[in-house]
Amino acid sequence: MISIHEALTLLEKKVNTLPVAETNLTQALGLVMAQDVLSPIDMPPFRQSAMDGYALNFSNEISSYNVIGEIAAGDNNQKELAKGEAARIFTGGAVPNSANTVIQQELVLRDKNKINFTKEIENNQNIREQGEQIKSGEIALSKGTLLNPAALGYLAGLGIEKINVYTQPKIAILATGNELVSPGNSLQHGQIYESNSIMLSSAIKQYFNIDASLFFAKDNLNQIQQTLERIIEEHDVVLISGGISVGDYDFVKSALEQIGVKELFYKVKQKPGKPIYTATKNEKLIFALPGNPASALTCFLMYTLPCLKKLMGQKFEGLKKSTRILENSYTKKTGLGHFLKATSNNKTVSILDNQSSAMLNSFATANALVFIPEDFESVNVNDEVVVYLLG
Amino acid sequence: MISIHEALTLLEKKVNTLPVAETNLTQALGLVMAQDVLSPIDMPPFRQSAMDGYALNFSNEISSYNVIGEIAAGDNNQKELAKGEAARIFTGGAVPNSANTVIQQELVLRDKNKINFTKEIENNQNIREQGEQIKSGEIALSKGTLLNPAALGYLAGLGIEKINVYTQPKIAILATGNELVSPGNSLQHGQIYESNSIMLSSAIKQYFNIDASLFFAKDNLNQIQQTLERIIEEHDVVLISGGISVGDYDFVKSALEQIGVKELFYKVKQKPGKPIYTATKNEKLIFALPGNPASALTCFLMYTLPCLKKLMGQKFEGLKKSTRILENSYTKKTGLGHFLKATSNNKTVSILDNQSSAMLNSFATANALVFIPEDFESVNVNDEVVVYLLG
Repeated sequence: MISIHEALTLLEKKVNTLPVAETNLTQALGLVMAQDVLSPIDMPPFRQSAMDGYALNFSNEISSYNVIGEIAAGDNNQKELAKGEAARIFTGGAVPNSANTVIQQELVLRDKNKINFTKEIENNQNIREQGEQIKSGEIALSKGTLLNPAALGYLAGLGIEKINVYTQPKIAILATGNELVSPGNSLQHGQIYESNSIMLSSAIKQYFNIDASLFFAKDNLNQIQQTLERIIEEHDVVLISGGISVGDYDFVKSALEQIGVKELFYKVKQKPGKPIYTATKNEKLIFALPGNPASALTCFLMYTLPCLKKLMGQKFEGLKKSTRILENSYTKKTGLGHFLKATSNNKTVSILDNQSSAMLNSFATANALVFIPEDFESVNVNDEVVVYLLG
Repeated sequence: MISIHEALTLLEKKVNTLPVAETNLTQALGLVMAQDVLSPIDMPPFRQSAMDGYALNFSNEISSYNVIGEIAAGDNNQKELAKGEAARIFTGGAVPNSANTVIQQELVLRDKNKINFTKEIENNQNIREQGEQIKSGEIALSKGTLLNPAALGYLAGLGIEKINVYTQPKIAILATGNELVSPGNSLQHGQIYESNSIMLSSAIKQYFNIDASLFFAKDNLNQIQQTLERIIEEHDVVLISGGISVGDYDFVKSALEQIGVKELFYKVKQKPGKPIYTATKNEKLIFALPGNPASALTCFLMYTLPCLKKLMGQKFEGLKKSTRILENSYTKKTGLGHFLKATSNNKTVSILDNQSSAMLNSFATANALVFIPEDFESVNVNDEVVVYLLG
């Protein structure tokens, strides 16, 4: 049995980024850039008016200008202005080469084609120079950038359509257990509803917008082994729920060993989620999670989440970590680190009553997990504790 | 021109939740429950073993038990145990009615069908009683609960397949402007690439997993009016990008007025994003956002985001608000509140160099917006400032 820190270190060392592929910008939200992207154009691509007003061929000694035309945004007619001439111009319009200032319309008095000004005007106003923001060939965004809405808008604004990103993993979830019945069916004595597949697939959807493939198997060594062989072949990451304890019907570990996976670790000094087993087969990652729902979700958030991020080119980081002042006390035995469902605001955190690993009711309303380290016996009101923020 | 606070108050008052509809649990991630959900079953549905071990018909005076059978998880054979009898049982297995304790296997010495114990054993151990977590007919989750992965797993575990939720809005994005060209085409003089539609649709996808419909129109009053009439009819929320300034080619406001929308407000004391216009038509919400990308995204995050949340049954809340210690200084004129692209850690925040509303480069790498109120002229190093956290 290893510590939480040791488990994370083993995983971080083992996980590499997935291959790079070109993708359309429209499909790239949440992905990470796998190379620097250079701007293909100057931005702005031309001298651009920042205001609605008048572009002038400005001269200190001239106080009144002749308006000889109009330039709207998108207009391609490249007017030339002689000394003392002006053009009506709108925000985003192309400023003529011969204009050296734009005067905003609020300062302009117009009489037919003659304009004067309500206060002293200046040279070099309200023009966004060509390439002022970025020049063709300069780095627009660097390798490693997470493509959020602003980054996608920025690249689209430079005319970029396709981009190299780290690809998303194909993920399978295998739920095992003779006692499991799908919602919508009736329960026989001894049966329960299978809920880990929707929970884990929703978490994967929420964090990565990836649709995981779902599989089911009975507690039967052959069936589990054959299913695992196939889905490890076809996916990059396999999550298994249940079948990993020491009971006579827990066949997952034996099945994985017979397939020839390499164990990374089995059992971590934590509660819930102690009997987590992780392994690799070549570059494939396998997480055998405990069957109890709260244990499975805790293990997913603590171990699978940072691995998935690193696979996709992000930092190896799980839930956001912070500290809060504790509002209630908690006692435990030493030996295992505890992750406790809790509700938190900006300053304080309160540990919820029901911490059973078999049920999700407190997890459903929690917005944080309080972490109590292995060697602690208690925490008290007003102690500063580590929290992991959910969602 | 109204204050940011006034603008938010007007919107919050105007927005109602969308209609309620029944949806499959598998489609409900991120939605909000529109009614209390009662548990249709006891949970656990039967007396359940919490351990791998032995279920005993325990008696204080008996120290050795006869093993008469085995109960795996999912087994339906309801064994009866006489005094002094035991059954091998596994985690999740149904504990016989006549058993009153489960002894974990680590404490058991077995010799054929006879078991003894390595330390004193006790009554009432390791059994999850039927209905211990929730009883049939009790409230499982309340109206207003956001359906996160744990909540979905919890409901699935109670056998629930369908649930009443507040529906998602149909959202349209209309980009206007003669100067706009789609990425992939070449630019003529005076043209720029259209980037607000991918930016806004990605933001909607990121926060709500909704696919917005995209529309485009030239700076032509008739075209804009006809397009708007149709898309307001067909959608719950319409975002318009560009065409809302005071220039002669800014037809959006006129078009909306001719369609008969009711203005909520036009222009807010803020930078970027001052010329935002919002309106309603019956229950439809219309946001005319400035065309400059950083202005459009700022307005979306400050105004559209909390409205979309309230439509879907969440609180009227935008980006998460917090405070940080400022690492650099900033000066401005009084009159407008400034939203400044910044990078933040848990304690401090640094305002980025490039705050142009025309470009997204600083927005692409920012993880926070620093807010400087209308009446401030400057903020200095080590001041505590309000930040809105991105992503």
